[in-house]
Order: sequence, then structure tokens, then C-alpha cells
Amino acid sequence: MKIDHIGIAVKSISDAVKVYEQAMGLQVAGYDEVADQGVRVAMLHIGESGIELLEPTRPDSPIEKFMSKRGEGIHHIAVRVDDIEQALERVKASGVRVIDSAPRRGAYNTRVAFIHPSSTHGVLLELVEHGE
Amino acid sequence: MKIDHIGIAVKSISDAVKVYEQAMGLQVAGYDEVADQGVRVAMLHIGESGIELLEPTRPDSPIEKFMSKRGEGIHHIAVRVDDIEQALERVKASGVRVIDSAPRRGAYNTRVAFIHPSSTHGVLLELVEHGE
Repeated sequence: MKIDHIGIAVKSISDAVKVYEQAMGLQVAGYDEVADQGVRVAMLHIGESGIELLEPTRPDSPIEKFMSKRGEGIHHIAVRVDDIEQALERVKASGVRVIDSAPRRGAYNTRVAFIHPSSTHGVLLELVEHGE
Repeated sequence: MKIDHIGIAVKSISDAVKVYEQAMGLQVAGYDEVADQGVRVAMLHIGESGIELLEPTRPDSPIEKFMSKRGEGIHHIAVRVDDIEQALERVKASGVRVIDSAPRRGAYNTRVAFIHPSSTHGVLLELVEHGE
């Protein structure tokens, strides 16, 4: 298990990228879009993990809703697992509330499932399994 | 450069540890206290990174103030660097606002410097250099 990435909600990916590139010396590895979540994504690699900048593409995007309440900032932590079904079963068996009771498609050919922050002391956790 | 840890503000480390151990299968690697910040710390390893649970030890702790505004949740991202002076100079040269203009002592024999979230799209970033 490792930190796959940290998701950060931003108003503008192009503005945010400047800070992470110039101040921190990171580089964008790629861009993607998750249409059903209404987000554009930029991934910057850092060690075995990534910083995922998330920009909303429409007003009903979960990222837009998050920022309207809390402003820009850290949105979620994604944990990479080898077997997402097994990891999700352990989460559910422990009594923790989940958002996705079964894995669904994520960005970059992954399968993902979100865990509800009400059970994890305010942290939105994402389980991620990478495809081949 | 890598993710050193993700700091999570919680009311009770002992409650939060249960979730991260039982639901996620992580284990506490150690406990520490940073007296001048008024926090008790539990570190759980995950890959090359850590989850740092932060519990306030007094009402004027920055963690207590954070939770009174935003509730429990992700507080900061710490980035491990080899040379904190050099990393901090790059941050300052890029025009990003810092909280610590020079490194100070952190938990676990580290030197740390925090970067102000007003310049980093709402993310409280910590630079960390580990001692020998």
C-alpha cells in the first residue's frame, strides 16, 4: 500500500501548475479529464506518489461544490492497493461508511472507490487499483 | 523529492488510529509530541510516506484552531527534501509566501519550514529535511 496521489481542488490548473513547478520544482506528467465527475486533471509526480490538481469543468462538479464551501485546497488522499475488491471489503467490514460500495472507473485506466469522510475523521479517502 | 507525510488534524489520536488500522490495515510506527506547537503526533507508515495524526494538547494549539474553523481533516502535506535551505530559497525566489523564513525543529529529529497556503492554492505545505 502506498500514497497514490493527493487531490487538490483548484480554480485554474494553469495557475496552480506554475506554483508547483516554479516553487517546488515538480513537473506535470500528464493531463486527463473525468467527464462524469466534471473535472480536468493534471498529475505531477513526486517520488512514488503524485499531486493531482483538479479543476471543475461545470457548475455541478463535486470539485466546484467543494470549493464553494471550503475554497481551494486539499480534496482527498488516494491510496494505491493491489486488489481493490479486497481492500474495499476490509473497509466495509470495519464498519466504515463508503461512498462507492463497488469500484468504478477513475482517471488513467484505474478502478477507484471513495470512502466517506464522516467515518475517517474528515478525510476523503480514495482506494485506487491501477490497470495493466 | 517525495511525500514525507500527510498531516491530519483529529480530536483523538486513539479514536483515529482505530480507523486507519482496522479499515486501512496500517500500523502506528511511533508517537511523538511537539511541545511548542501543542500537538501530540502518531505516525503510520504507508510506502515511502506517512500518515501523521495530529491531536491538540492545549486550546491555543494551531491544530485546535484549525479544527474550530474546519473540523477534523487533512491539515498539511509535507514534502521531503535533501537540502531544506536550498528548497526554501527556491520557494522564496518564486515569490511564494512562507510562514517560516528559516528552518526550525520538527518532530522526529527533522528540520521543517511551512509555506503559506495563500500562495499555494489553499494547501499548507511543509518542507522536511531528516537528520542523520
